[in-house]
Amino acid sequence: MIIVFKPNITKKDEAAVLQEIKRLGYRPHIMRGVARTVVGAIGDELTHKSLESLIALFPQVVESVMPVQKRFKLVSREAHPANSTINARGIVIGGRKIQVMAGPCSVESERQLLTTAEAVKAAGATILRGGAFKPRTSPYEFQGLGERGLKLLAKARKATGLAVITELLSEDHAELVAEYTDIVQIGARNAQNFQLLIAAAKTGKPVLLKRGLSMRIEEWLLAGEYVLSNGNSSLMFCERGIRTFETYTRNTLDLSAVPIIKQESHCPIVIDPSQGCGRAELVAAMCKGAVAMGADALLIEVHPSPAEALSDGGQQLCLDGFVALMAELKPFIEAVGRE
Amino acid sequence: MIIVFKPNITKKDEAAVLQEIKRLGYRPHIMRGVARTVVGAIGDELTHKSLESLIALFPQVVESVMPVQKRFKLVSREAHPANSTINARGIVIGGRKIQVMAGPCSVESERQLLTTAEAVKAAGATILRGGAFKPRTSPYEFQGLGERGLKLLAKARKATGLAVITELLSEDHAELVAEYTDIVQIGARNAQNFQLLIAAAKTGKPVLLKRGLSMRIEEWLLAGEYVLSNGNSSLMFCERGIRTFETYTRNTLDLSAVPIIKQESHCPIVIDPSQGCGRAELVAAMCKGAVAMGADALLIEVHPSPAEALSDGGQQLCLDGFVALMAELKPFIEAVGRE
Amino acid sequence: MIIVFKPNITKKDEAAVLQEIKRLGYRPHIMRGVARTVVGAIGDELTHKSLESLIALFPQVVESVMPVQKRFKLVSREAHPANSTINARGIVIGGRKIQVMAGPCSVESERQLLTTAEAVKAAGATILRGGAFKPRTSPYEFQGLGERGLKLLAKARKATGLAVITELLSEDHAELVAEYTDIVQIGARNAQNFQLLIAAAKTGKPVLLKRGLSMRIEEWLLAGEYVLSNGNSSLMFCERGIRTFETYTRNTLDLSAVPIIKQESHCPIVIDPSQGCGRAELVAAMCKGAVAMGADALLIEVHPSPAEALSDGGQQLCLDGFVALMAELKPFIEAVGRE
Amino acid sequence: MIIVFKPNITKKDEAAVLQEIKRLGYRPHIMRGVARTVVGAIGDELTHKSLESLIALFPQVVESVMPVQKRFKLVSREAHPANSTINARGIVIGGRKIQVMAGPCSVESERQLLTTAEAVKAAGATILRGGAFKPRTSPYEFQGLGERGLKLLAKARKATGLAVITELLSEDHAELVAEYTDIVQIGARNAQNFQLLIAAAKTGKPVLLKRGLSMRIEEWLLAGEYVLSNGNSSLMFCERGIRTFETYTRNTLDLSAVPIIKQESHCPIVIDPSQGCGRAELVAAMCKGAVAMGADALLIEVHPSPAEALSDGGQQLCLDGFVALMAELKPFIEAVGRE
Repeated sequence: MIIVFKPNITKKDEAAVLQEIKRLGYRPHIMRGVARTVVGAIGDELTHKSLESLIALFPQVVESVMPVQKRFKLVSREAHPANSTINARGIVIGGRKIQVMAGPCSVESERQLLTTAEAVKAAGATILRGGAFKPRTSPYEFQGLGERGLKLLAKARKATGLAVITELLSEDHAELVAEYTDIVQIGARNAQNFQLLIAAAKTGKPVLLKRGLSMRIEEWLLAGEYVLSNGNSSLMFCERGIRTFETYTRNTLDLSAVPIIKQESHCPIVIDPSQGCGRAELVAAMCKGAVAMGADALLIEVHPSPAEALSDGGQQLCLDGFVALMAELKPFIEAVGRE
Repeated sequence: MIIVFKPNITKKDEAAVLQEIKRLGYRPHIMRGVARTVVGAIGDELTHKSLESLIALFPQVVESVMPVQKRFKLVSREAHPANSTINARGIVIGGRKIQVMAGPCSVESERQLLTTAEAVKAAGATILRGGAFKPRTSPYEFQGLGERGLKLLAKARKATGLAVITELLSEDHAELVAEYTDIVQIGARNAQNFQLLIAAAKTGKPVLLKRGLSMRIEEWLLAGEYVLSNGNSSLMFCERGIRTFETYTRNTLDLSAVPIIKQESHCPIVIDPSQGCGRAELVAAMCKGAVAMGADALLIEVHPSPAEALSDGGQQLCLDGFVALMAELKPFIEAVGRE
Repeated sequence: MIIVFKPNITKKDEAAVLQEIKRLGYRPHIMRGVARTVVGAIGDELTHKSLESLIALFPQVVESVMPVQKRFKLVSREAHPANSTINARGIVIGGRKIQVMAGPCSVESERQLLTTAEAVKAAGATILRGGAFKPRTSPYEFQGLGERGLKLLAKARKATGLAVITELLSEDHAELVAEYTDIVQIGARNAQNFQLLIAAAKTGKPVLLKRGLSMRIEEWLLAGEYVLSNGNSSLMFCERGIRTFETYTRNTLDLSAVPIIKQESHCPIVIDPSQGCGRAELVAAMCKGAVAMGADALLIEVHPSPAEALSDGGQQLCLDGFVALMAELKPFIEAVGRE
Repeated sequence: MIIVFKPNITKKDEAAVLQEIKRLGYRPHIMRGVARTVVGAIGDELTHKSLESLIALFPQVVESVMPVQKRFKLVSREAHPANSTINARGIVIGGRKIQVMAGPCSVESERQLLTTAEAVKAAGATILRGGAFKPRTSPYEFQGLGERGLKLLAKARKATGLAVITELLSEDHAELVAEYTDIVQIGARNAQNFQLLIAAAKTGKPVLLKRGLSMRIEEWLLAGEYVLSNGNSSLMFCERGIRTFETYTRNTLDLSAVPIIKQESHCPIVIDPSQGCGRAELVAAMCKGAVAMGADALLIEVHPSPAEALSDGGQQLCLDGFVALMAELKPFIEAVGRE
């Protein structure tokens, strides 16, 4: 920790702060600068108390307190310099091949799901997405088919050979969901529901962690740390748009997350352009950008009839749209030297 | 729903959209304006599918789709024109008296909690706050004493007669937490954890719902709707700061939430200035503003020794600071004609 | 400046960074911590180059660079511990009396302005506001009456004795505007138009600097520094709402700006609740909060017939509304011990 | 305009609103829905007063008012369905060739500028960027070389044949800057400095309009409208990152601006990844994404010795870094079928 003093502090005030630093287990090291005196408090920040309270304790003396250590460990590149790869039912995420996860926002019916599954498989997707338990802003909106939805996903998997990803909404469903899915998705609204993260980790299945609506990169990495520190090393991050002042799009897809996650972490990074912009007509451009920037996988909403969708119709591609997109992506996948 | 057409649309395109509107259960009503043709789709938006998918379905024809109904019902002033009051162990929130909920961020020890409880009671607080289960950004930070913390809260309640509020973090703890607390708190990070909201509602205890870090007012009201629509009418909203670009404060306390919640809803509104600004030296000013603007209660973090706190030391008042604050608030409470 | 090294750095890499620090004029001081090595670069940050480029120059070695000095000087409390007061045509801002600046968003006609001026004066306002040059999002919206508006303001001043505040939009108008106004207003969209700030400073008139839509406190103080460092010490800051994700209000009025500006600066702080929330029905509550928190003045939009206003009708109070507000504010002004 | 009534409105209240709508020049058209009555106010919104004031005027009756027309005209695709191209000294922006504008943040010396100009030309850039007048957050930071900087740009242009782009900061410099530059840049902090936009337009030179830090797409298009409606049709938009809650990057580069500007407008779109993320190590990835998504040009900061730069050293590429980037971009340029 670095403690910056205000200017013109008395020796007595300085001594009181230094004593408090020692009492909290750090060794203080003073540096007298030109305009400010600065104290380096030496000690492991991950195992000691934060010194940020010094500002409140000595408001006339301490100007600011700055941590120097990164707070995440297991998800960091330092802990694991090489890229991690994740194996979901034989599909490898984080390797040379860019994986495409596609399917409807919500599982609505057998026909809807199977039609979509077959179409996306034919177009080149390897993983089927579909929500069985749906978190909805209003209690009066469609909440998903629940267990019946999970069974339909299993049926579609059997019929097509696609792996399956679906969202876990409740600790109480962890066992049930894990029984049917190959990847457990944690949604943006639960990205800091730490109990749910622990429950997801404990299923042993690969976990896809969406970024919360207003989550800083560091907080996202730390949420991932909950998965790895609970014994599950198969974690991937998924950028799905952050909340900003812009109203043209539903969210602002922060594609800088791709190089940043690659720089800070060994875990794969997935992009969800459907949630990310909330407008189907922008999905193709966002996918091209994501691929060019180094994303390991794409998560795309596809529906046989978007206008009839029970949720988020405006952001789902139709089947033909998805086929066209997969063709358009080819030159970009080649340009990054992947498959 | 209002559907706005792009300019210069053919009759055929128009007819196709109208047919789709009918198919989705609405009755279309056309208005030909000077620059745009607009369609009113008549039908209850709460029971019909959204028409927002029309933009994706007819990208060359439909420019925008705007809902006209408010999506929340039970929390609205329309449903219940008078102010609601909430009774927590005899303490009435939403009445003439402004209630003060005070106590440490985390319950840390019997001595810390009892000292604080007695001090805040003596200064005029009526409800004791204290976290037993703590949601922490990092898995390496103090996670709370759990059930032992709940027991200490019960002990402090017995010793002082204060009512108790503590946070519920997990559906699995709902019964346990409800056994010990008088008000169930839902934290900002779980404000759209709908399963937890339902579990909290079902305890039958009053629920305090904090605003999520980037939650719009409408989404907050809809999250409250999950509580009321699950059979619990004792709901209060708590503004605790939203996330913005500003870095001087930890969050931006949005005090406009006070008159807005009063305008839109019958439920009481509570202000948490400790989380709201994250800096103890700003708490007093924020409390004065909150009281002047009509808040029904304040939720304030108080610790006998903030620098030693196991969480959020920088935003907790010391005991003397709290006593001084309570005295300073008096003229403002009188100015709003409350007690 | 504090430079934090990545872990496991070679001596050679370390030496290269230290040499660069010296070359840029700082004296490096090494602290070896438990998990990180940190270098304090000793030297005046205001007169030396920033070391932030070290991250780009040594990406494998330097993890982060943190400045320790505050960048503002003349606006700071350190430079001038007592509160500053500003005298505008005999009206003192920043003293015991809370001043109210009221009037229409735009000057529209002699009748509109004089009616308003007389009404706000009778209700207790001491300064007349009114836009003659209007910055409008669209070129097709009313741009103000220009010089004719200034002349009407002067006429209203003569008729009522109120001081006048109006916005300066262009360096080229500085002399003209200064001829007619008692306070020069810099609007939110020009808050970092530094040439305009310098021109405003050079008029010698008191300057009211609105906070930019997404300006951090530090940037706002630094923009104020442009005024003071150009020879004008009569500066006041005006919070008028920041841009956030919330759409219920036009902006989010950040009332924490009141205690923060008071803490960091000696300059008076003014609150503009009309722009701040963009909804007339919220103005009264925001004013009460602002007064309770210590604001020195209020800037309120008032129009004899808001629905006919040529700009921002939705946020202007009618004359009766303003009279009622002034009466409602009295107990809060007393509660803060002011007039 | 669409006016939504609150439920259970009396006939008398309704009549009063309808009369006001008529008085403001619109023809009201009533639609009685299931839950709400809605009025379409028929009339050209661009030439009539906004009806948003109805909410303030009839707070118990009117729930919301929604405009239906887009406010921008000349920049829109509707006004000019084909892509516009811009010619700056023979360099065409918006055509098949993706143009690269490169150079230092600030012009610092003849040697620095000429070295950079030659290097970026050799690597494939066609336009030289460099700030002569610099807008700086603090008055104590380097403010640019002014006219001497412009002369150095002219010299570099003569030596290399590159076209030149530089920022216009003040109306008073418009003539001077136009004399030396081929493209006039309007910076983010001046994006709604409408007087400056008009002055830039009137120079007759192509204008590059950066997006303001918290500017919505619609506001950006309307700011562009100030250029086109003042007789200058050579406008390009430049996304340079918006301000969000994220602190890892200096700004959040919103690459969705590329497809959105292409959809709404005929003007070219340029991406500035240097300002956009503020970290040199992320620039390459952002450029690849921008190219893949359809950007017409890139604006990249390059400096012979970033650590010695007088401004923004942390985000400038070194000469070798720029050469490497240009090579890396080739496959992506081919993938979009451009040059």
